Amino acid sequence: MNEQLICQVVEQAVKEAGRAVMTLDTAKKLIEKVEGKAREMGIAVIIAVADKAARPVAVHCMDDAYIASFDIALNKAYTSAGLKMSTAALSKLSGPGQPLYGIQHTNEGKIVIFGGGEVLEVNGKTVGALGVSGGTLEQDAFLAAYGREVFGQII
Amino acid sequence: MNEQLICQVVEQAVKEAGRAVMTLDTAKKLIEKVEGKAREMGIAVIIAVADKAARPVAVHCMDDAYIASFDIALNKAYTSAGLKMSTAALSKLSGPGQPLYGIQHTNEGKIVIFGGGEVLEVNGKTVGALGVSGGTLEQDAFLAAYGREVFGQII
Amino acid sequence: MNEQLICQVVEQAVKEAGRAVMTLDTAKKLIEKVEGKAREMGIAVIIAVADKAARPVAVHCMDDAYIASFDIALNKAYTSAGLKMSTAALSKLSGPGQPLYGIQHTNEGKIVIFGGGEVLEVNGKTVGALGVSGGTLEQDAFLAAYGREVFGQII
Amino acid sequence: MNEQLICQVVEQAVKEAGRAVMTLDTAKKLIEKVEGKAREMGIAVIIAVADKAARPVAVHCMDDAYIASFDIALNKAYTSAGLKMSTAALSKLSGPGQPLYGIQHTNEGKIVIFGGGEVLEVNGKTVGALGVSGGTLEQDAFLAAYGREVFGQII
Repeated sequence: MNEQLICQVVEQAVKEAGRAVMTLDTAKKLIEKVEGKAREMGIAVIIAVADKAARPVAVHCMDDAYIASFDIALNKAYTSAGLKMSTAALSKLSGPGQPLYGIQHTNEGKIVIFGGGEVLEVNGKTVGALGVSGGTLEQDAFLAAYGREVFGQII
Repeated sequence: MNEQLICQVVEQAVKEAGRAVMTLDTAKKLIEKVEGKAREMGIAVIIAVADKAARPVAVHCMDDAYIASFDIALNKAYTSAGLKMSTAALSKLSGPGQPLYGIQHTNEGKIVIFGGGEVLEVNGKTVGALGVSGGTLEQDAFLAAYGREVFGQII
Repeated sequence: MNEQLICQVVEQAVKEAGRAVMTLDTAKKLIEKVEGKAREMGIAVIIAVADKAARPVAVHCMDDAYIASFDIALNKAYTSAGLKMSTAALSKLSGPGQPLYGIQHTNEGKIVIFGGGEVLEVNGKTVGALGVSGGTLEQDAFLAAYGREVFGQII
Repeated sequence: MNEQLICQVVEQAVKEAGRAVMTLDTAKKLIEKVEGKAREMGIAVIIAVADKAARPVAVHCMDDAYIASFDIALNKAYTSAGLKMSTAALSKLSGPGQPLYGIQHTNEGKIVIFGGGEVLEVNGKTVGALGVSGGTLEQDAFLAAYGREVFGQII
């Protein structure tokens, strides 16, 4: 390995490590994107971003969004970061007769079992999660999935 | 009153009414200002803005801010909007032997009785509140007061 | 009964009584075993052991396990010690139309109604319980059952 | 810079990064040390270790420790990680007439304002925190401070 190659490898490693951390700057950029899309759809939602420890990083409440959506968006982000799973996937696993039926009672009311929460990943590693609430279930799930996709371009 | 005058009065009234509402846009602008000031001071804080119903509008957590400051910043904003009073003023009223001694027990742990929460006003009317947590008490109180002052320029 | 026989019986009874208490030492040995098995399976889980009073004795969180699994593992141990039943057995009894339907609402969110919690017994008597969370339902249930079995060799 | 030097720098950086993460292995080693010291002192305590996101990593309850100490030890670790401060330091800041008077009410009962919680650091950076409960205040604070000191040798 010559010096130049080593420098490249190190630079890349440092960059990767940096990308694996959810900064406020990244969270804001992601929220802007989701907010823009919600505006296009003509709906008002609340958008929360958590880091990989399921701690909140930023929350934005669009004008006239549902009051109750603040807790729901935060908890969707908590759930997806905390279980490394979208809340849409969890909803399938937690229905009557399903393996995780009843999981919504285990974490002091912080587990959400319907769509709108998505894991945010870099190179297959969980970096954080996104929670969206305020539209219909389909709209929330769409916006969260949109955020998950767009996250790759931001980071 | 002629037509033109009526129009002017109505326009003014509508504008005032608009300024009396805490929009996400305004909250973000205010948070950016406080964030910038905190960065100048070399500290990381969590900044929450609530509307006049004491409901959160936006929360930003600067990188590496205290985990515990999320609840504290949110609750400072709740307290100031909910009681139309800075939390610094409340701290004086709630000490042992003071009129509101014990008030921190009345609202399910959401009343904060130390500085860092400020009311946001337009023409003497409460529009919302700001909560800052993450520095020393003096720094939080300074940043909240700064936000309160700068709010007039933003709106 | 001669003296020697009495001594033997007493010794045996004291030994049995000792084994009926969940010590930290026993809990750690059990957790190590389950941890080792989880490592073999290539998964990261959180493992909690409770005593017969359903009080926690030890909890270990394997690196990178789900954040949400801490409460779930603790609550599985609580549930199994508290009801002297595996959470897999409880899941059958608590489904819609089943005798204990709704039991997850009775204990402030501490009853878990899916697999991964097992009673720990000595001579048919409950000594404590084990809760495992972090894999799929099948993996958690497998690890808890493994812990239940291996417990006999440890104590 | 020649290749060898670069390799050394990279190795060191990777090692530092690794030490900045609270692993279960590190947490167990630290708890063993504190447990050993408590045994020497003839007391039974509950010892909790959290990571830098204030999430629990391991908890051990020594035989016959106070039941109530489980929550207290966990919350001491939460408090010290969440505010990057020992709970002994916080106790001085939160007394009547002090700047953070009332802080114990702001985080849903998770802020502890008496000694026994300590920040765990590597090179001046918070890696996690330690909470000890079960002895007198002096004993808990002594054991937590002991753990803080001994942490440097473990990591």
